[in-house]
Amino acid sequence: MTERARLPVIVVKFGGTSVGDVARIKRVADIVAEQRRSDPARGIVVVLSAMGGETNRLVSLARSCSDSPDPRELDVLLASGEQVTVSLLAMRLCSIGVPARSMLAPQVQISTSAQHTNAMIEGVDTAAIGRILESGGVPVVAGFQGITDSGDITTLGRGGSDITAVAVAAALRADECRIYTDVRGVFSCDPRVCPSARLLERVSHEEMLEMASLGARVLHTRSVFFAMRYRVPLAVLSTFDGPFRPGLNGTWIVDEEELMEKQVVTGITHRLDEARLMIQRMPADISTMAKLFSALGARDVLVDMISQEAVGPGLVNVSITVADEQSSLALEVAREAVPELGAHGVSVERDIAKVSVVGLGMRYHTGVAGRLFRALERERIDVQMVNTSEVKVSVLVGRKFCEAAVRALNEEFFAPHAALVELSA
Amino acid sequence: MTERARLPVIVVKFGGTSVGDVARIKRVADIVAEQRRSDPARGIVVVLSAMGGETNRLVSLARSCSDSPDPRELDVLLASGEQVTVSLLAMRLCSIGVPARSMLAPQVQISTSAQHTNAMIEGVDTAAIGRILESGGVPVVAGFQGITDSGDITTLGRGGSDITAVAVAAALRADECRIYTDVRGVFSCDPRVCPSARLLERVSHEEMLEMASLGARVLHTRSVFFAMRYRVPLAVLSTFDGPFRPGLNGTWIVDEEELMEKQVVTGITHRLDEARLMIQRMPADISTMAKLFSALGARDVLVDMISQEAVGPGLVNVSITVADEQSSLALEVAREAVPELGAHGVSVERDIAKVSVVGLGMRYHTGVAGRLFRALERERIDVQMVNTSEVKVSVLVGRKFCEAAVRALNEEFFAPHAALVELSA
Repeated sequence: MTERARLPVIVVKFGGTSVGDVARIKRVADIVAEQRRSDPARGIVVVLSAMGGETNRLVSLARSCSDSPDPRELDVLLASGEQVTVSLLAMRLCSIGVPARSMLAPQVQISTSAQHTNAMIEGVDTAAIGRILESGGVPVVAGFQGITDSGDITTLGRGGSDITAVAVAAALRADECRIYTDVRGVFSCDPRVCPSARLLERVSHEEMLEMASLGARVLHTRSVFFAMRYRVPLAVLSTFDGPFRPGLNGTWIVDEEELMEKQVVTGITHRLDEARLMIQRMPADISTMAKLFSALGARDVLVDMISQEAVGPGLVNVSITVADEQSSLALEVAREAVPELGAHGVSVERDIAKVSVVGLGMRYHTGVAGRLFRALERERIDVQMVNTSEVKVSVLVGRKFCEAAVRALNEEFFAPHAALVELSA
Repeated sequence: MTERARLPVIVVKFGGTSVGDVARIKRVADIVAEQRRSDPARGIVVVLSAMGGETNRLVSLARSCSDSPDPRELDVLLASGEQVTVSLLAMRLCSIGVPARSMLAPQVQISTSAQHTNAMIEGVDTAAIGRILESGGVPVVAGFQGITDSGDITTLGRGGSDITAVAVAAALRADECRIYTDVRGVFSCDPRVCPSARLLERVSHEEMLEMASLGARVLHTRSVFFAMRYRVPLAVLSTFDGPFRPGLNGTWIVDEEELMEKQVVTGITHRLDEARLMIQRMPADISTMAKLFSALGARDVLVDMISQEAVGPGLVNVSITVADEQSSLALEVAREAVPELGAHGVSVERDIAKVSVVGLGMRYHTGVAGRLFRALERERIDVQMVNTSEVKVSVLVGRKFCEAAVRALNEEFFAPHAALVELSA
């Protein structure tokens, strides 16, 4: 196993838009064939998603058969989507002279937990993939699916095909895992919000993890976490913009140790799907606080930011932020708790946004928060709450100021003069 | 295994039109639930086809990816069709209170040969199905698909889901295998040709086998052969015409020994897709004949009927019939052989049809051929060739006379007075 895993190999994964129709599947086949020609010393393993939109179509078929589809059966249904794309790509590859073989999860043996529709990968057997690679073939692996100990088909939930790709790369100790998608990589901030967003050439796993959880939607946090844990070098690039070219197409996401120079700030992210609850005039003691957060935790409300301000002798206003989709539940829980807490009431605000500045270099450089506040002040944007970690600073602003805040922070940290400052740091 | 296999169980199979959309899948679920309610002592195993038209859609997707799709990959693609229907039906059944579980070929362990797109079933493991049945559940098995020793997915070719149903029934020693389809059963002749066609209540496996190979399209010969070999009682009935009612919906296809009274004639079949080749003025010796048929056999031409007539001293005209789709090939082979055979030439005629009278009773009753010729003579229909076996008489007629011939023979053997003759025989 160890010997086999050392065969030099790269894993390439193509998302739903990249295999969205026959013309695109042919393009993907050409990319794989070209990679094989230009780099014959390394084996290639392909991982695919279902055709874009197919998973949604299958879910709505399921919903029309049952109001709450049985999760085991839903997984059998959903897994058919990747079965279609892997077989089509494999037959296309065969027809252009690349000996490819499709592999479904039971054929690879991608073992998962039995948590249907959201299963966790527990292991990837490399034996069957290794045999195909050793014979000079290209395994085309169905992403998003797995199999339990008892032989049931599972799916991995959101971002599942990326997770498959990273897990296969980790198991094979692949040189790299390349995620082909419909964007050119990771930007300093959302290019739809800020036209001067810069395409980042390299970020660390940890930075990417922060950015993904803070709203950069290029990769799902689970796949980044997997890549970080198993030290898999990841690359994100566009299927439709030619090969990897620094600054034009593609971002490397690598182990922190491989970053020669740590940037102070890696990127600016934002989320609009946040809501803020304020529990008014609550007694300012630790046991009341504990009661509040126990009540929220008992109903699975995930609290993000927390702050409190004194509003009278022994009384505080406590603000928390939650994902928009949990705001109604959080409001209900907090309202029920108000009498026991001895508070005066609860209010909710949904017109807010969270903007974050992320960078490993914050560990070693001070002054990021200061530059952030000065940049927002220049644009007269009020900050409602602040939250910091070792590698990020997040602020809550009014939703209508979100885009202006992202642009101001991108200007501050990524405009040409900012880059010079970084290089001289 | 043997004990488990004796659990009383029936297998019900639904074809592509029966699961063609969500509304029909719900109807199928209701039929299964009702069967379970009304006959609680017997377990039910369901076998399904893909949605009607889905297999063709997938084949054309494959063709647009590759001119000659790799057969292994084509099978992976095609198998996704049944995966969709079994999971949808299972979730529908669960939602109406029937504990169902979908099973793909690798989960059942339906072992086949490695002949992709046309694999042969080599075994059906009953252990996994048995466990679900014993726990009171309903296994919903994907038809048409199998798995090789090395774990590759295969498909069974035409009539594949019927074959799966019969094979599962044979392995479980099921009481019966019920094939739900879009026709009400087996008719004395094609009801589209002859409105007075009678719905047959019972026929033997052997008769059905002859009728299927002679043009009755209700069941494929392979599934009938399987049922005959393993003595599985088969029933064919319509999904859309209520339950089994003798003479109104459903035909039993049973072991010959279970037919209390053998009918002289079971049915009339016809085929329009035949062609007749005539090799003219060929030397009438056995070695020349051998050369002709060796040449045809070497190119895989399947010859059906053969006749010869003397046309001069030591010279014969030899007529053969082949399937229309092989007629160009057969003509080419015969033309190439003409010089070596010392014949004068070859002609082909495509405006012909084969009409057959089938019945086990012919073994014991004489006079069927006589009645056949008299009935055709009354309609002034010329017979070009004749072919007989133990249980059938086939005649070749001009294509434009085919329907008249079928009606005349149905009248002769199935009109009320004919039935009386049979009963008194």
